[in-house]
Amino acid sequence: MEREGMGFVPEIVPADSRLLEKAQARLDDLTKPVGSLGRLEEFARRIVSITGQTMPALGRKVVFTFAGDHGVVAEGVSAYPSEVTPQMVFNFLNGGAGINVLARHAGAEVVVVDIGVDYEFPETPGLLIRKVVKGTRNMLKEPAMTRGEAEQCLKVGIDLAAEYAGKGYGLFGTGDMGIGNTTPSSAIAAVLTKRGVAEVTGRGTGISDGGLAKKIAVIEESIALRNPDPNDPLDVLAKVGGAEIGGIAGLILGAASKRVPVVIDGLISTAGALIAYALEPRAADYMFAAHNSVEIGHKAMLEKMGMVPILDLGLRLGEGTGAALAMLLIEGGLKIYREMATFSEAGVSGEVPG
Amino acid sequence: MEREGMGFVPEIVPADSRLLEKAQARLDDLTKPVGSLGRLEEFARRIVSITGQTMPALGRKVVFTFAGDHGVVAEGVSAYPSEVTPQMVFNFLNGGAGINVLARHAGAEVVVVDIGVDYEFPETPGLLIRKVVKGTRNMLKEPAMTRGEAEQCLKVGIDLAAEYAGKGYGLFGTGDMGIGNTTPSSAIAAVLTKRGVAEVTGRGTGISDGGLAKKIAVIEESIALRNPDPNDPLDVLAKVGGAEIGGIAGLILGAASKRVPVVIDGLISTAGALIAYALEPRAADYMFAAHNSVEIGHKAMLEKMGMVPILDLGLRLGEGTGAALAMLLIEGGLKIYREMATFSEAGVSGEVPG
Repeated sequence: MEREGMGFVPEIVPADSRLLEKAQARLDDLTKPVGSLGRLEEFARRIVSITGQTMPALGRKVVFTFAGDHGVVAEGVSAYPSEVTPQMVFNFLNGGAGINVLARHAGAEVVVVDIGVDYEFPETPGLLIRKVVKGTRNMLKEPAMTRGEAEQCLKVGIDLAAEYAGKGYGLFGTGDMGIGNTTPSSAIAAVLTKRGVAEVTGRGTGISDGGLAKKIAVIEESIALRNPDPNDPLDVLAKVGGAEIGGIAGLILGAASKRVPVVIDGLISTAGALIAYALEPRAADYMFAAHNSVEIGHKAMLEKMGMVPILDLGLRLGEGTGAALAMLLIEGGLKIYREMATFSEAGVSGEVPG
Repeated sequence: MEREGMGFVPEIVPADSRLLEKAQARLDDLTKPVGSLGRLEEFARRIVSITGQTMPALGRKVVFTFAGDHGVVAEGVSAYPSEVTPQMVFNFLNGGAGINVLARHAGAEVVVVDIGVDYEFPETPGLLIRKVVKGTRNMLKEPAMTRGEAEQCLKVGIDLAAEYAGKGYGLFGTGDMGIGNTTPSSAIAAVLTKRGVAEVTGRGTGISDGGLAKKIAVIEESIALRNPDPNDPLDVLAKVGGAEIGGIAGLILGAASKRVPVVIDGLISTAGALIAYALEPRAADYMFAAHNSVEIGHKAMLEKMGMVPILDLGLRLGEGTGAALAMLLIEGGLKIYREMATFSEAGVSGEVPG
């Protein structure tokens, strides 16, 4: 059964929960006290359950960094001007940004997706041009996107997930770049978690106390004026969201439909994850929450989805940086599962207690 | 000035705190909002300050897993028999244990040190035989080690640190193997943090409620009978400690004296770190706390030293597994410092606010 007007959401089956137990049985037979590798064991179990394979290999890893601009920057909600969005895209393409460094460290590729930047990029290796809008409209004055544009953003992500799953990539990470994008992310958080705007809004790139008060007021007024329907995630994405947030949401839905685990970065990525979750709660089975962002809205959204972040390092950069780091830990868990000796293989006694 | 009878503690200079500011200035010039990479920036600053180099390269990484047996196992404090200690050493040498998997994942070597196992190992590649005792004595009945043995354990670690620093290794991790060794670790925690034994004693490899009550009673009685002097760390190590704990303490002192950063694993390693810290508080400048162990005594010791763990993954295996994982994050921080583009290099505007 298809939800009305949501036919673009791909079919997602729940991850195979019977395999969680089977995976744990193997973990319990490895040469360590039962459960002593904590969340690494959880990561391994979940990868087994997600992929449906009893001995999964992750294969290649990729972080998708979706870039878009935001009309609401005109209201003074960010410490940086919008021109920094394309400048940072060039920085990504030159390999000099935080995500480049940490993805290299994690052995992951970076794919930069222009889904909504207000700049015409030349064809450049490493850049996918999938532009839906040239920046969103100012959500304080009008809806950020049309419903059709929002749907198009989701489709960009869904198609990318299918393409990269088809190429054999086994672990996806999400990332974002877009000056002003903590503003729509906090708006989405407020609408979908039903919390007050001040409870889910932080300083983004680093605004002052006055700037924060202004940002909160802009979000509150935008929500009041646009009146997004919390029961219609596409409406929320269109009216107070952003193109890169839609792309991330689509990527997650696509990953889940292809049974590829996907690591969710910080505030902006999690706003995308929450849109995906609201469209299809089964998508949560396929997500890993990379880290606990400094941005306060992040925690509220993770709680809404029942997700516990892997890292807590005071990060608030975005781009996919936290996702790249968390990939290393998830992969560590899978290697434990694949590579450790069992008690009988190692000739170790006392396959003991619980 | 040398403390009486502590001439074996190598000279340790404080890490160069002026370099913290200098490193932060570079971090603030990289293409990201100021401070937005949180603890990754802290790791980079500290590596600069520790090494005294404005552009440090970490070079090779190594985890030292010190192994020893414990006479107190006769009191039924562990879920596993002592024979598992040498069995696990063989598992390490065959590459099948958790530490092997995670060290490979982190690009670190594993050096296994027999400092106190009650077993005669043949010469084996990857195993350093530096045996001080063939298992400690049962601390409930008599001091676990003599003062001379405890000092010898420290020297083993100090010498290894010097040797590996000399070979150019730039990041050390600590690890342990020793059935029963959470018992002396909790004893050390209780004595040196001045907390009640029940507050710092956990289930180790996985004992029952009854087992835990027994373990607490054994530790309480051992401390009462042995009466270790909390102002004399060597006395504590000798009377209620263990050989691998002494080796770890020595390794840390040696690392600090050679200005090599050292990543401290969980409960047992942190008991070693606390002995090192009690002998020479300056050693703390050189330590990174890898993770927050499930073992409750761990947190008390970290607090005593003012250390905030990097990871919180519910680990309680030891061996150096948490240290290996944390190395990946520390290295990630250093790579950010070394490899990210500055605003001017990348042509990004708005070297903005704070």
